[in-house]
Amino acid sequence: MGKNWDGLKTRLEEIRAVEEALILFEWDNETLAPAGAMGLTAETVEKLSGIYFRMMTDPRLDECLKACRQETLSVEQQAVVRETEKKREDLVKIPREEYEAYSGLTARAASVWSKAREERNFDLFAPVLQEILQYRKRFASYKAKEGQALYDVMLDEFEEGFSMEKLDRFFGLLKGEIVPLLRQIEEEGTPCPADFLKGDYPEEKQEELGRFLAEYVGFDFRRGVMAVSAHPFTTALHNHDVRFTTHYDSFLDHSAFSVIHESGHGIYEQGIGDSITRTPAGEGASMGMHESQSRFFENMIGRSLAFWEPIYPKVQSLFPEQLGNVGLEEFYRAVNRVEPGPIRIDADELTYSLHIMVRYELEKGLVAGEIRVEDLPGLWEEKYEEYLGVRPENVSQGVLQDIHWSQGSIGYFPSYALGSAFAAQIFARMEEEMDVEGLLKNGRLDVIREYLREHIHRFGKMKTSRELLKETTGKEFDPSFYVNYLKRKFSRLCGLNR
Amino acid sequence: MGKNWDGLKTRLEEIRAVEEALILFEWDNETLAPAGAMGLTAETVEKLSGIYFRMMTDPRLDECLKACRQETLSVEQQAVVRETEKKREDLVKIPREEYEAYSGLTARAASVWSKAREERNFDLFAPVLQEILQYRKRFASYKAKEGQALYDVMLDEFEEGFSMEKLDRFFGLLKGEIVPLLRQIEEEGTPCPADFLKGDYPEEKQEELGRFLAEYVGFDFRRGVMAVSAHPFTTALHNHDVRFTTHYDSFLDHSAFSVIHESGHGIYEQGIGDSITRTPAGEGASMGMHESQSRFFENMIGRSLAFWEPIYPKVQSLFPEQLGNVGLEEFYRAVNRVEPGPIRIDADELTYSLHIMVRYELEKGLVAGEIRVEDLPGLWEEKYEEYLGVRPENVSQGVLQDIHWSQGSIGYFPSYALGSAFAAQIFARMEEEMDVEGLLKNGRLDVIREYLREHIHRFGKMKTSRELLKETTGKEFDPSFYVNYLKRKFSRLCGLNR
Repeated sequence: MGKNWDGLKTRLEEIRAVEEALILFEWDNETLAPAGAMGLTAETVEKLSGIYFRMMTDPRLDECLKACRQETLSVEQQAVVRETEKKREDLVKIPREEYEAYSGLTARAASVWSKAREERNFDLFAPVLQEILQYRKRFASYKAKEGQALYDVMLDEFEEGFSMEKLDRFFGLLKGEIVPLLRQIEEEGTPCPADFLKGDYPEEKQEELGRFLAEYVGFDFRRGVMAVSAHPFTTALHNHDVRFTTHYDSFLDHSAFSVIHESGHGIYEQGIGDSITRTPAGEGASMGMHESQSRFFENMIGRSLAFWEPIYPKVQSLFPEQLGNVGLEEFYRAVNRVEPGPIRIDADELTYSLHIMVRYELEKGLVAGEIRVEDLPGLWEEKYEEYLGVRPENVSQGVLQDIHWSQGSIGYFPSYALGSAFAAQIFARMEEEMDVEGLLKNGRLDVIREYLREHIHRFGKMKTSRELLKETTGKEFDPSFYVNYLKRKFSRLCGLNR
Repeated sequence: MGKNWDGLKTRLEEIRAVEEALILFEWDNETLAPAGAMGLTAETVEKLSGIYFRMMTDPRLDECLKACRQETLSVEQQAVVRETEKKREDLVKIPREEYEAYSGLTARAASVWSKAREERNFDLFAPVLQEILQYRKRFASYKAKEGQALYDVMLDEFEEGFSMEKLDRFFGLLKGEIVPLLRQIEEEGTPCPADFLKGDYPEEKQEELGRFLAEYVGFDFRRGVMAVSAHPFTTALHNHDVRFTTHYDSFLDHSAFSVIHESGHGIYEQGIGDSITRTPAGEGASMGMHESQSRFFENMIGRSLAFWEPIYPKVQSLFPEQLGNVGLEEFYRAVNRVEPGPIRIDADELTYSLHIMVRYELEKGLVAGEIRVEDLPGLWEEKYEEYLGVRPENVSQGVLQDIHWSQGSIGYFPSYALGSAFAAQIFARMEEEMDVEGLLKNGRLDVIREYLREHIHRFGKMKTSRELLKETTGKEFDPSFYVNYLKRKFSRLCGLNR
């Protein structure tokens, strides 16, 4: 180990400590902090962000990085240097005051969003969203290459190498294949009754099921926490402190699959190598890759018949009155019912990406200046009508349902659809390499998890999502795996002749 | 406002942000963080402490403070400058590496203590305590004036102006008056049966009662949070985010009075003025004054008959089976039963300060080097036998019961007894100024709270605890108020002829 590396390490540990403080504040704001605290706490977040910004843009960090380039570094160290440089280069282009003010704004925005959502009043949130949008556009403009569209800059932040051109093709394929499939299912498919999933499912029992499922798929509670928030999410201080939330309503499957989804994120974070956790290389490879893991556990694993086979008696024992007379096959069909609705996080597997398509098109228009913030609620309704055939009853079920924009995440949503597609491609390969169904029937989640840890999780950002996908599946990204997976699964499930 | 003040303000806001991050990490560690996180998170705390230390000892802060002294400052601003200087002067004497290492050590120590306590194994904790003790002694030696005993330095940190000389006199008085009173009560007092307080009190119901009591005494949940931890405590990010914890066992009164106690701390923190919160002047005047407020609410208010009169039907309605047949007077007598036991936080009002006396004597001996860490468990038992007439069954009920030493708080315990004595002195004055009993009977807690806010809370550290006591009561500290209060209350309650 050279002394330049040691110097860099010391610097990065301090920076990481401030970053973790920011992560903890965000977690705390979403899960526990009292409503009245928001204003003063946003000031704290603003100041901490300023300290973080100053440390990252300190010219001495740059010198440190350059000096490290002269030393012989391990692969992990090289990744740390590379990822630190990337983060640094993005930040140095932004004036500090703008960065701080933006951080304070997003710290305050979550509570504004939450209030607007409660009161079903988009006008409360609109000015804040407008301001966030302006900041994101300005930040993107600082980074944009000549002629590069601002939304392309944003998309690239969450999923390197992706642009509107690629996503237009991807969503075009989905629109061309999934929308007609949905229509066909609605017209001629065998229904999957699911009335029994709605009812008197006490929150404590749902929580018990949630904890059981999270542990069953492999989330490690010695190194993790589960809590409740308005909008489920996962976050991590480091690979020994990974946290996710869920929410409870009267549908049993909503919280159950939300827990499996977030556990997928959590397992990714817990699987990141000890040598890179708490460094800029110790995060998920990309948002798309992160979502691929959560969607993989939620759908390819969690919505399969084989997954529930060994544990369904346990589920029944938790809810003897509600599920005692419901057979495994019936339960499996119910949790796979195709039922277009207004809420993304409660969506079925088939229509999920149509929810994303709506958001993608709106973000694209917003950033290009073709759509105004105040037009969002109306356009949202129209697009839901067009793609999903449903209209939200109010803005809280519509444009205000997601927390992402309040956090400044514009360009994030496409990761969900991409993640689902990555997941399908990984699943296809996994099925070639092992008897996934057999493993699930025997409760051997560990084998599946270990495969993902070995091929994906442990690398963090040491490899790009493109490299990981290529090395794991032997192929470049190919969305036809996803489309074929959906067509095969739902044609069979709904008894279609295709 | 001068520009020097503005410069100081900016600096202090950044420092405070880092301090609040440390407060949040501590809260999180005690209430939620997964067990496996401790090691890595302690590194984070260590780094953040280092940043805090560097900011506080930065010579530019000193220049800023000196420049401010040249400007015309408001009373609040003067207090901020003074308190910042004090904190700074203490820190500059400590080498940074020692400060960081100590911060990491105490961040790790809580989990070691917690494990040792669970496993009833003092040997697990002893080496850590030894290390903490060495650090505290070294830090005290950096500050000590010539010839000043190290424990006197520590006592002064928590309660300015107090030393072993004064405390020996104070505890001497208690020993001379309270120990014989206790013996007399045990021999000839009318018993206060309290069997009904132990039993099947479900945790959710205890929580409901706790929330009700906290709100009833005036803790504001829009600006506060209640949670659960092994050891009840209160902390505050600022006056709009004040948090306390409680713990539940099978005795109803344990959690109920712990909640009222912590609410007293919380009300103090919520009452600190907006113009000084988030500054070094925006904390409680001293630990003794802080404890005076919690002990005041817990005992002078909470353990009075008049307090329960308007709300006892509500309490009965929460526990109809357990308390339906228990009258108000019976309940009042039960929660005031004199029952020496091994656990401080469950102690009755009379014997409470005897628990403190044990800790005071042990700390004194430890710091002077007359007592070795490994001798603590045995000495603990002997002193409990001597003063309270009880022997703890194991070290978890003995020397491991309190979290304080693991947090580095050596010299803190006497604040509890001092606080009780301050509270009695304030109570005596309050009774001269208003009909406290009448107010309580009418549920007018707001009048009492407002009196305390007006005379004490709002000032934060703008006045010393000595000034506050003098201005509120018209007298210097006089422990006879406390002794007389206890003698009067318990003679009456236990039907003694004195």
